[in-house]
Amino acid sequence: MTERYVDTAGNLLEMMVNAAGRLVPRQVNGVPQEPYSGIRRDRPTGRKAAAPVRSCSEFPADGDKLLPSLGEALARAGLRDGMTISSHHHFRNGDLLMNQVFAAAAELGVKELRWFPSAAFPCHEPVIRQMEAGVVRYVEGSLNGPLGDYASRGKMRGTAVLRSHGGRWLAIQDGEVHVDIAVIAAPSADSFGNATGDRGPSACGSLGFALADSLYADRVIVATDNLVPFPCVPWQIQGQNVDSVVQLDAIGDPTQIVSGTTQITRSPDRLLIARFAADFVAAAGILRDGFSFQAGAGGTSLAFTIYLTQMMRQRGVKARFIRGGSTKYLVDALEEGLTDYILDGQTFDLAGVRSLRENRNHVATSPFTSYNWHGKGNFASLVDVAVLGATEVDLDFNANVVTHSDGRLLHGIGGWQDALFGGCTILAVPSFRNRIPIIVDRVTTLTGPGELIDVVVTERGIAINPRRRDLLEATRRSGLPIRPLAEIKAEVDGLLGGTPTRLPRFNRLIGVVKWVDGTLLDSIWQVDSI
Amino acid sequence: MTERYVDTAGNLLEMMVNAAGRLVPRQVNGVPQEPYSGIRRDRPTGRKAAAPVRSCSEFPADGDKLLPSLGEALARAGLRDGMTISSHHHFRNGDLLMNQVFAAAAELGVKELRWFPSAAFPCHEPVIRQMEAGVVRYVEGSLNGPLGDYASRGKMRGTAVLRSHGGRWLAIQDGEVHVDIAVIAAPSADSFGNATGDRGPSACGSLGFALADSLYADRVIVATDNLVPFPCVPWQIQGQNVDSVVQLDAIGDPTQIVSGTTQITRSPDRLLIARFAADFVAAAGILRDGFSFQAGAGGTSLAFTIYLTQMMRQRGVKARFIRGGSTKYLVDALEEGLTDYILDGQTFDLAGVRSLRENRNHVATSPFTSYNWHGKGNFASLVDVAVLGATEVDLDFNANVVTHSDGRLLHGIGGWQDALFGGCTILAVPSFRNRIPIIVDRVTTLTGPGELIDVVVTERGIAINPRRRDLLEATRRSGLPIRPLAEIKAEVDGLLGGTPTRLPRFNRLIGVVKWVDGTLLDSIWQVDSI
Repeated sequence: MTERYVDTAGNLLEMMVNAAGRLVPRQVNGVPQEPYSGIRRDRPTGRKAAAPVRSCSEFPADGDKLLPSLGEALARAGLRDGMTISSHHHFRNGDLLMNQVFAAAAELGVKELRWFPSAAFPCHEPVIRQMEAGVVRYVEGSLNGPLGDYASRGKMRGTAVLRSHGGRWLAIQDGEVHVDIAVIAAPSADSFGNATGDRGPSACGSLGFALADSLYADRVIVATDNLVPFPCVPWQIQGQNVDSVVQLDAIGDPTQIVSGTTQITRSPDRLLIARFAADFVAAAGILRDGFSFQAGAGGTSLAFTIYLTQMMRQRGVKARFIRGGSTKYLVDALEEGLTDYILDGQTFDLAGVRSLRENRNHVATSPFTSYNWHGKGNFASLVDVAVLGATEVDLDFNANVVTHSDGRLLHGIGGWQDALFGGCTILAVPSFRNRIPIIVDRVTTLTGPGELIDVVVTERGIAINPRRRDLLEATRRSGLPIRPLAEIKAEVDGLLGGTPTRLPRFNRLIGVVKWVDGTLLDSIWQVDSI
Repeated sequence: MTERYVDTAGNLLEMMVNAAGRLVPRQVNGVPQEPYSGIRRDRPTGRKAAAPVRSCSEFPADGDKLLPSLGEALARAGLRDGMTISSHHHFRNGDLLMNQVFAAAAELGVKELRWFPSAAFPCHEPVIRQMEAGVVRYVEGSLNGPLGDYASRGKMRGTAVLRSHGGRWLAIQDGEVHVDIAVIAAPSADSFGNATGDRGPSACGSLGFALADSLYADRVIVATDNLVPFPCVPWQIQGQNVDSVVQLDAIGDPTQIVSGTTQITRSPDRLLIARFAADFVAAAGILRDGFSFQAGAGGTSLAFTIYLTQMMRQRGVKARFIRGGSTKYLVDALEEGLTDYILDGQTFDLAGVRSLRENRNHVATSPFTSYNWHGKGNFASLVDVAVLGATEVDLDFNANVVTHSDGRLLHGIGGWQDALFGGCTILAVPSFRNRIPIIVDRVTTLTGPGELIDVVVTERGIAINPRRRDLLEATRRSGLPIRPLAEIKAEVDGLLGGTPTRLPRFNRLIGVVKWVDGTLLDSIWQVDSI
């Protein structure tokens, strides 16, 4: 008997099996899909999408595009039922804009919007009410926290489409997602629409995640709480792409946008993982003059950065560049001369914001420069080593970052998939969390193919992907606890009393995971009955 | 009897009369044309052009796109007969690249190319031989010196299409000109294709004129004489748009790229003109805190800048921004605190290059930000006063910058048309040159409509366009020699012994002048019989 699969709108789904052996639908939200076919297999054709041609004839000669309210700006942008509104997540959990935008849309009586954020956060929980009221049909983008939980319970009337930062750029650039109206929260802007995130009371650093939206959307609205005289420099967003500017009392909560200081882990296990990762990088011969690395802003990653920069100091090694997510620790490295450049996709603390504003060698990147797979190369593959996290990893080194082992969608992909293309990808993960093992037989949701994951570092040892004989060879006599992944798994399973039982899965699709090239890597299923 | 008009390829031309009363063809080089219909009348539809979608799958993971020669790069880019090759003119008369490019094309046996430079200079005289040999069919772009003369004598097998800097961006962006292969001369570049003009032995400042080419061309080749390790920062040209990189011994002659110092006029008449222009700006009330101005790098413009900045110092007035073409004098103003910003389209001397590299408030602009008419506004109309030149001006304030009164095409438009949209446009011109009057009954080639030209300043007095009652009123009691333009013309004609006789014109079209919105403003005719 063939299984029957449906989406949350009740549509019967035709399914296909992709090159990773995962079941994925032929259509998502009415759009035909290609299955994942492997790494570096895509050969795109055709041309990029493009914004409408506009004219200075339509805009005031004095450059003043100020409108009195979000409602007015949305109305002038021609907001209609069913349109797609995009936004960026540089304000993270401090965003105060998008709830105002949907409230204004509700007041205009508009229905069935698609929200296309670069990521949604717990602060966007009110959007659930807008979905219940029919103002918003569904959210297409990374769903963190309450919105992910809402989607996981099958309540969203559309399929969540999870893309990496690069994948989101690609989707807009390739024309898969057409943005009708982009709304850009700007910590500083002039009335012409030039905007920057690196200064102002709600400074967040770069506005790179909004760049594609500003280039490709039919209409672009800039909202700011800090209007400056023309020219707003640097113009991270160019006014020539902006239709209107709205001045608001508040667009973001500064205490939530960036943290004053970023917290290093105090867990002895996590510190050990970070130590192992840093030692591995040195033992493998990666730590050499002119090298480059990337590590996130999580507690373990920060500890790794601190260990690694300590080793750089001790050995007199200088990096050519460090890829941010920037933090105080990267800024210290730059200002101390441990690296020539920070190439920064996202600023995580106030030191990062300050440095991006002041240091010419602290360079803002965008998903286009860093991560877009459909460019003529990108920066991700030029990074020598990237230290990343995961919720699960299997014995073929396949990894999951979006769902927990109970199947619940709780995290976005961020730049995780894109960063896998670095010279050496290290997953730095505890071997279990809350008595749930991280190393599993089969990851709940495949987010990254194992052939791109080179090393798994846990507090119980370091497992090297057998494909990387060079790394195995280089570290053989390092004295580090290099062990087969299966051995670590067996040890953990023994400790926890065996592999946990899989929960039964509903055949109701609530989301899909895209691969960086726009193909479908995996499906995400409803976890509760409705 | 109807006159018969042909182009240099022998095609019979259908002509139309545009809103400026000028005769323009319905087709140019086989492409249908719209006649000029007035200022701010265009209402474009449709979407912008776009480059092909490419993939990281096609490019090396280590980012190394180096190829051994221009010929190899052109061959890999698929160079074929009849293609369009574009280039930029930041090296001005010091360009050593494009003659190498066409030599390589000749070696590949390719014919009938269209060259689409942002401007051609006397150093490109060898391209005439390539046209004679059939490698190049014709040049579509500003023609200075020998190439202009060659075209004027009807020898080019295609119609010259003169566009402003903004007009060139528009033509690429709107899809009117499709560039097959862009070649970018880069004073510094990495092997990934990131490139900058602000450093290296052949530093020229910005690479803004090549930006559109890098974004819209099917294939992009970067040629550099200064290969630097990744990342080349700032990436004025993004490697993600670049197909290949070629390292050459020489791409430009540093002595010709920028002048070490820029020369102020010593002519008493020109100094007087500059003085009048500066005094006019003050008298008209334009010189006030937060104002902005633009002046070129010619001798009179430089003198104007010096007079104006002297007045700013004396009066304690600070500009919000100055639009470059940057020179030492603008850099002095910036570093002295006389202006918050230089917004720089083109760097004219070594001080400008140094400042662009070092000063964060010396900001490189592109034709997109400054001049593209088919954007959502541009910077040109935000400039309070622009001082420009002209070869001719008529009593309706219409002006010519491309031909001399003998009809010969000798100059490009540059940013001249675009800059006319500033708050007050001043033409600072001598009343005659080589016994040829500048003020004429009818300009030989209409390049700028009189309604955008507010003031004509000569050594014999200042004429204000009657449309600008505000300026007439503001300067009535200034003591400046404000006079009707006709009165100045009569005085000069008297002095020179009457209006010169018009030369007979051939009905063979050799070029057209586009208006900033892409419509046809005027035609340029052959001057010698063949």
